[in-house]
Amino acid sequence: MITAAVKKNTREKILEETFLLLLENGYDNVSVSEIQHRLGISRGLLYIYFKSKSDLLFEACRTYFFDRFMTNIDFEKISLRDFISHVRKVIFTLTKINGKEIDILKYNTLCSHLLIQNPDFKSFALEQFSMARKVIRRAIKSGEIKNVPESFVGATLLAILGRTSYITQTPGKSYVRKRILEDIESFYDIIKRGS
Amino acid sequence: MITAAVKKNTREKILEETFLLLLENGYDNVSVSEIQHRLGISRGLLYIYFKSKSDLLFEACRTYFFDRFMTNIDFEKISLRDFISHVRKVIFTLTKINGKEIDILKYNTLCSHLLIQNPDFKSFALEQFSMARKVIRRAIKSGEIKNVPESFVGATLLAILGRTSYITQTPGKSYVRKRILEDIESFYDIIKRGS
Repeated sequence: MITAAVKKNTREKILEETFLLLLENGYDNVSVSEIQHRLGISRGLLYIYFKSKSDLLFEACRTYFFDRFMTNIDFEKISLRDFISHVRKVIFTLTKINGKEIDILKYNTLCSHLLIQNPDFKSFALEQFSMARKVIRRAIKSGEIKNVPESFVGATLLAILGRTSYITQTPGKSYVRKRILEDIESFYDIIKRGS
Repeated sequence: MITAAVKKNTREKILEETFLLLLENGYDNVSVSEIQHRLGISRGLLYIYFKSKSDLLFEACRTYFFDRFMTNIDFEKISLRDFISHVRKVIFTLTKINGKEIDILKYNTLCSHLLIQNPDFKSFALEQFSMARKVIRRAIKSGEIKNVPESFVGATLLAILGRTSYITQTPGKSYVRKRILEDIESFYDIIKRGS
């Protein structure tokens, strides 16, 4: 008998390994056999947890691109300042999955690829971003930030977070993370009221 | 006898067709045979103008990613405002190559790819960006813009210009161009002194 706790654990293990493979190989080059092989499990077991390969890949991306960012936030109340601080914290936890350092450029490239190629992922992303847009809209209304276009604030924050290349000789993991955090702060500083 | 004018014309035609193919197929999927085929020229003629395939691809990218942006600018004198206005104008001419509308997302994706994969292209890009950085540094020093980190201004302008995905249901060519231009202006507005 598989207990609920074991089930949760196995499901998470599968999602984690799938996501690490997606980062390494790119979305179009991940096979179910390789996931099985890495985890040492049967195809039958895999399909207890996921309906299909595309269901598995989607769930893995949803988990690592959204769920870890978006939980424990009250989108109806949080200020933009607190939202950004939350994102800062999450970026630090995000750079490690099960002790392995993630390459943020690969992470961003995978996300761009999904937004262009996968309509389901894109619809899901749109929903998530509409919640973030609410935070920005409220920050403009309340006077927390200047009266700038909402779409500009959202797009620029995303552009800073989501860059896929850096013009530097040595874009190491810690350099990229440092630059994202610094640039997000610099951006908030210049849009906030009274700066 | 091939006159200098014919030579220039042929060279440009080859670069143009090569770049259009790069946009369509991606950097790793362009063959010299296909370029020949499209232009109806022999391999021998092609190699009068270019030393090798990689020389041809590099020259095509240099031409369409940099030469069209960077000419007629005095980097020792131009203000950031005038530099941005220049870029605005160039983006409009850039969306058409020989009457064909270019897809800006593909254009940006190709550029990201080259920066990551091609060390020669990256060195060249670094040189070009160091000139743009000069303009930003001077704008901070002269008080044209606020005292914000130079790297933040450069990276954010590049991030806005170079986005490879948009969170929208219909990222048509005109939408992407419009958003780039609007966001660049919004960004300049909030960094300029006295805003």
